[in-house]
Amino acid sequence: MPGKPNAVVLLSGGVDSATTLAIAKDLGFEVYALTFRYGQRHEAEIAGARRVAAALGAARHETLTFDLRTFGGSALTDDIAVPKGRAPEEMTKEIPVTYVPARNTIFLAFALAWAETLAARDIFIGATAIDFAGYPDCRPEYIEAFQRMANLATKASVEGRQRLTIHAPLIRLPKAEIIRKGLALGVDYALTVSCYDASPAGACGRCDACILRLKGFAEAGVTDPIAYR
Amino acid sequence: MPGKPNAVVLLSGGVDSATTLAIAKDLGFEVYALTFRYGQRHEAEIAGARRVAAALGAARHETLTFDLRTFGGSALTDDIAVPKGRAPEEMTKEIPVTYVPARNTIFLAFALAWAETLAARDIFIGATAIDFAGYPDCRPEYIEAFQRMANLATKASVEGRQRLTIHAPLIRLPKAEIIRKGLALGVDYALTVSCYDASPAGACGRCDACILRLKGFAEAGVTDPIAYR
Repeated sequence: MPGKPNAVVLLSGGVDSATTLAIAKDLGFEVYALTFRYGQRHEAEIAGARRVAAALGAARHETLTFDLRTFGGSALTDDIAVPKGRAPEEMTKEIPVTYVPARNTIFLAFALAWAETLAARDIFIGATAIDFAGYPDCRPEYIEAFQRMANLATKASVEGRQRLTIHAPLIRLPKAEIIRKGLALGVDYALTVSCYDASPAGACGRCDACILRLKGFAEAGVTDPIAYR
Repeated sequence: MPGKPNAVVLLSGGVDSATTLAIAKDLGFEVYALTFRYGQRHEAEIAGARRVAAALGAARHETLTFDLRTFGGSALTDDIAVPKGRAPEEMTKEIPVTYVPARNTIFLAFALAWAETLAARDIFIGATAIDFAGYPDCRPEYIEAFQRMANLATKASVEGRQRLTIHAPLIRLPKAEIIRKGLALGVDYALTVSCYDASPAGACGRCDACILRLKGFAEAGVTDPIAYR
């Protein structure tokens, strides 16, 4: 019996990527989870990713380190204040300061490198175009363009051994549906971290990520199991 | 008078990227040189990049560090032996073991991040499809696909402020022509490092990169100014 096919899953440690990992497992893949330490202001989400990968049975979990602060330009890596207390409709009006230049392109590029060495034909990303309408690199047309480029980029794709697919299974789902799907697949959201400003005392509850998370849980009719400070 | 437009130039410290940097300067760009420490077996090429950036007057030179050995799969980052003594026609028969999975995609992704924070519309890469016919990510169709993806990936491109161009000015040039062009633009090739197996005593003279370099200088009718051990 041949083994399961390998897939690389980008895992930040939040609700979306944890759900994406569970979806990849459910589709029958052996999952290789990939997390980045890129100069975020806190390590909490990396710890969350480690817990999620272990709980969902990833075959391997790697954390790659580089420093995006070299280039600057984002509230997630610089000293720009994370906006607090905004309504969801306000968040989509313009691209938020929490946008990190070219982040998904960098993440997917590393996933592509690992996919090639694993002979994996599938890469999963938890991008969603609904909640983060303001992020250019979360749109379906961006994901498609990356996939097209990826199929010209690697030795395996050129030799025809590896037709790569970039899966973004959440791209058109509202947060409440993502949470319902994840719960059905056994995701323990108590292990996840979403907050842009997390501390050991818990999530802030007021940044864009916390507000969208809380709204999602409320709409799904489920209590968010994490601590808020 | 408005200042010069900014451009990001990928700079490995070899002949091709040094020439590309000189071309970008000659075209009137303020150049921001970007080098990667990604788990290569020697630091000599990074030192070469530093010397080249200084000599050609880059506005800034950054070296970003990450470890591609996490994924494995290349003689440049693993313990696979670098092939020696091959004829140029042998090198293009198949993709060499010195191929690093998704390397140019990763490099260009970081260049894209920096370009966005610099408000640069231009990225230069010294890819050449002639000498390294075996590298999928050195082909014109790959560069075009990356450019298309890049124009969907960033805040600046989506807002129409930044139509990005990926320049690969050497892509159809044989090494001898690259060297002639660089000499005409004042590149000091004594500062460059090409060898896959460089040591303080000099270049090996027998790996693919050394053989292509020596052949290029011979065909250009110029003496290679670096030391061979």
